[in-house]
Amino acid sequence: MISMPQLIDELSQALGAGAVLTGPSDVAAYVEDWRGRYRGPLTAVVLPSTTEEVSLVVRACTRHGVPILAQGGNTSLSGGAVPAADGVPPVVVALQRLRRIRGIDPRNNTITVDAGCVLAAVQQAAVEAGRLYPVSLGAEGSCQIGGNIATNAGGTGVLRYGNTRDNVLGLEVVLPDGTIWDGLTALRKNNTGYDLKHLFIGSEGTLGIVTGAVLKLHPLPTAQAMAWLSVRNPEAALDLLGIMQATCGPRLSAFELLDENQIRLVLEHVPGRRCPVADPAAWHVLVELSDSGDAAELEARLEAALASALEAGLVIDAVVAASGAQRAAFWEFRHSVSEANKKGGVGLTSDTAVPVSAVPAFIEAATAAVHAIVPDLPVVIVAHMGDGNVHFIPFFSFPAWNGLAERDQMARRIRQAVNDTAARFGGTFSAEHGVGQTLVGEMARYKPPVELMLMQAVKRAFDPAGLFNPGRLLPPDPTA
Amino acid sequence: MISMPQLIDELSQALGAGAVLTGPSDVAAYVEDWRGRYRGPLTAVVLPSTTEEVSLVVRACTRHGVPILAQGGNTSLSGGAVPAADGVPPVVVALQRLRRIRGIDPRNNTITVDAGCVLAAVQQAAVEAGRLYPVSLGAEGSCQIGGNIATNAGGTGVLRYGNTRDNVLGLEVVLPDGTIWDGLTALRKNNTGYDLKHLFIGSEGTLGIVTGAVLKLHPLPTAQAMAWLSVRNPEAALDLLGIMQATCGPRLSAFELLDENQIRLVLEHVPGRRCPVADPAAWHVLVELSDSGDAAELEARLEAALASALEAGLVIDAVVAASGAQRAAFWEFRHSVSEANKKGGVGLTSDTAVPVSAVPAFIEAATAAVHAIVPDLPVVIVAHMGDGNVHFIPFFSFPAWNGLAERDQMARRIRQAVNDTAARFGGTFSAEHGVGQTLVGEMARYKPPVELMLMQAVKRAFDPAGLFNPGRLLPPDPTA
Repeated sequence: MISMPQLIDELSQALGAGAVLTGPSDVAAYVEDWRGRYRGPLTAVVLPSTTEEVSLVVRACTRHGVPILAQGGNTSLSGGAVPAADGVPPVVVALQRLRRIRGIDPRNNTITVDAGCVLAAVQQAAVEAGRLYPVSLGAEGSCQIGGNIATNAGGTGVLRYGNTRDNVLGLEVVLPDGTIWDGLTALRKNNTGYDLKHLFIGSEGTLGIVTGAVLKLHPLPTAQAMAWLSVRNPEAALDLLGIMQATCGPRLSAFELLDENQIRLVLEHVPGRRCPVADPAAWHVLVELSDSGDAAELEARLEAALASALEAGLVIDAVVAASGAQRAAFWEFRHSVSEANKKGGVGLTSDTAVPVSAVPAFIEAATAAVHAIVPDLPVVIVAHMGDGNVHFIPFFSFPAWNGLAERDQMARRIRQAVNDTAARFGGTFSAEHGVGQTLVGEMARYKPPVELMLMQAVKRAFDPAGLFNPGRLLPPDPTA
Repeated sequence: MISMPQLIDELSQALGAGAVLTGPSDVAAYVEDWRGRYRGPLTAVVLPSTTEEVSLVVRACTRHGVPILAQGGNTSLSGGAVPAADGVPPVVVALQRLRRIRGIDPRNNTITVDAGCVLAAVQQAAVEAGRLYPVSLGAEGSCQIGGNIATNAGGTGVLRYGNTRDNVLGLEVVLPDGTIWDGLTALRKNNTGYDLKHLFIGSEGTLGIVTGAVLKLHPLPTAQAMAWLSVRNPEAALDLLGIMQATCGPRLSAFELLDENQIRLVLEHVPGRRCPVADPAAWHVLVELSDSGDAAELEARLEAALASALEAGLVIDAVVAASGAQRAAFWEFRHSVSEANKKGGVGLTSDTAVPVSAVPAFIEAATAAVHAIVPDLPVVIVAHMGDGNVHFIPFFSFPAWNGLAERDQMARRIRQAVNDTAARFGGTFSAEHGVGQTLVGEMARYKPPVELMLMQAVKRAFDPAGLFNPGRLLPPDPTA
């Protein structure tokens, strides 16, 4: 029933043959995620250059009943942007040719961009206009704005500036029927009906394809101050966070927690990294302040806050970065954790979040739950603590992992123990990485049925044929 | 077909007779808005005390096919919370008995409240815990959180802290079928499917009844600094805003613009008000900074910023508040505009927003558009300039208004001229007051058809019987 050659022919006529890829080597980069964990067949990769071309592609695929999968920088950690192993092979709509900065309005603090713009390019364009685009994450050199929006990307700037969702004012979306919705408003206030953009943000390509966005910019901080601290335990880190928030208010732009195991993995596996404090303690906190004005004033404020934290016994050791190079080195250490953990063994990464106040109790309870399955299994912790977002990572050495009889089952049991614990604290199994294909089972397990029903109702209303990223995000619709 | 006596009987059995009002004097406060502009018949007013009772009410009304209208503090400026003049008279669900502060978690910076809590009570509970709930507006002494959420209320804190939408983490909602959705999450990051809360925020009671919410709290600022400035024109105010944002960053918590006519109206009609600057100029700006730490440091920063603005010729005159009492007096002046304008004549208030950068050009163009209809008609302007939100108010004296032959038609023409102008600048006809019944026609006129179609699809998916606040927010559904 589905005539692939005819569809490919139509796509080639609409976009030009050079924009439709089908050869195995041409599509190799699109069929698999960057960690090599997910792969699946596809019908073709198309490279539209305009929103109108995206619309043509959607209309053609819809006519033929072929699924449509939008792909940005292909940096998903949840398998959300590569073809599924089963079902009709999708047409992958790769957005990289939509990469114009459409405009920048410094006096309105907004930038309007194509969805295929790389995050770092948007950050750079903002800086050139004397502004800050505050979303920042490890993959910023290759991830695209469209993917950031589709997954509501988080990262290290969330504490002060919010998630991607909080930095989007308007969207342009190609809807499942091919219609283009121009919602590119640059307004900070607009109470005229349902806020549709928030439905698309975080919808992981299941409701349409984001092709453009108006993003919020912020004043470019002219001063930074950073400290690397060692603390006794997460409870002390939580008290320290309270002090930092009370004394530094919105200047506090990062508050990251790392445990000793995470420090060791980076030191062992990533060349050139040094731990800022001389004697690596059990728990470490990276604190960043940023502000307009003068660096000296900001550093003085940081030092005053740290002095009172030292006095209160919350901090064991503290190193305040003495230069921009040292601040960069602190961040480089923090951003090395993915590489270190990949090289050092097999980490059963989780992306839990709990209320900030519950972080210490959650870490303790989740550790106990994991140890009830594998006694004494090391746990690696790297947390955006200011957001309550804990990457809680039960960690196997390669020999220990390879020695296991039932690896998949073990991974499932351990992850479930961690996510069950998060749920007990009112938490979530996916704070910032999204659901993709990895966590669809968790959606069925943890989300209240009434919430799934509402989501399915939205999905049916927007994409009645179910062609947009099928099998992702939502469990199968019982009423479909 | 609709048996009102039987419905009222069922409601009385479910809630107790004291919670069901039908007598004319008992329901008088619920049938009309506070300005006396809208009124309509109702079947009954119910006063549920729990979420479960709200659910019982919804189920009973749904069985009988009677419309359901949620009402909070009844402070809407758009007629959104009182019965329509036509159609089946609704059951008004008044939320004031749901007024518990359910809990406060200072270390998570959250407060969980019933929807019927008055905004000022929530602000007060936050202060008692050493925190700030930042939504602030003229009606805060009587408006309720549920209404704030249903209308995404704005106010004077938006520049720094965002709208109500930006301060809601979780919701509890009674859905149109009576099901209770417990979405009371207190998480700052949660990427697990469509963000349903954003659909309900700003939906003006058309998708269900909000019964509870988890709200974000912020560090309580310990220092404020304020200045009242006179400036040459809106363009100078815009340049001044840029300077304040660059030098004061997130400390800038208010930037309000008022024109000479607005100043005069307050001075003439509200006893006890004094203009802070000696010689009222054409345009005035109220600037507020707030911060943790020391007031002296903040004042020094404000004075430095104003000095450079004076030097650049942007500011004609400036008075920095010397005390808390003086700051309160500045705000009192600002909050007196509604009273002044009501007493001083007939203002055809608008609630436009445009990109911040377009505010000066918009004011000029809208003034010209109004003067093309009524030459030299005074215009009153009071704007949350930092948000691009301009209350642009063509203003008639009572004699001039009463002398008009076709008042309704004149009001329509003038408002349309203003809103058309806003639309030309990429603006909106309702920045913060919502649509209610007043602006349904504007929805049809200004919203792209594709956007209305998507909203109607959401409405049908959530409320297929169309019983929730019918005739509000959305124009009639062409497919229904």
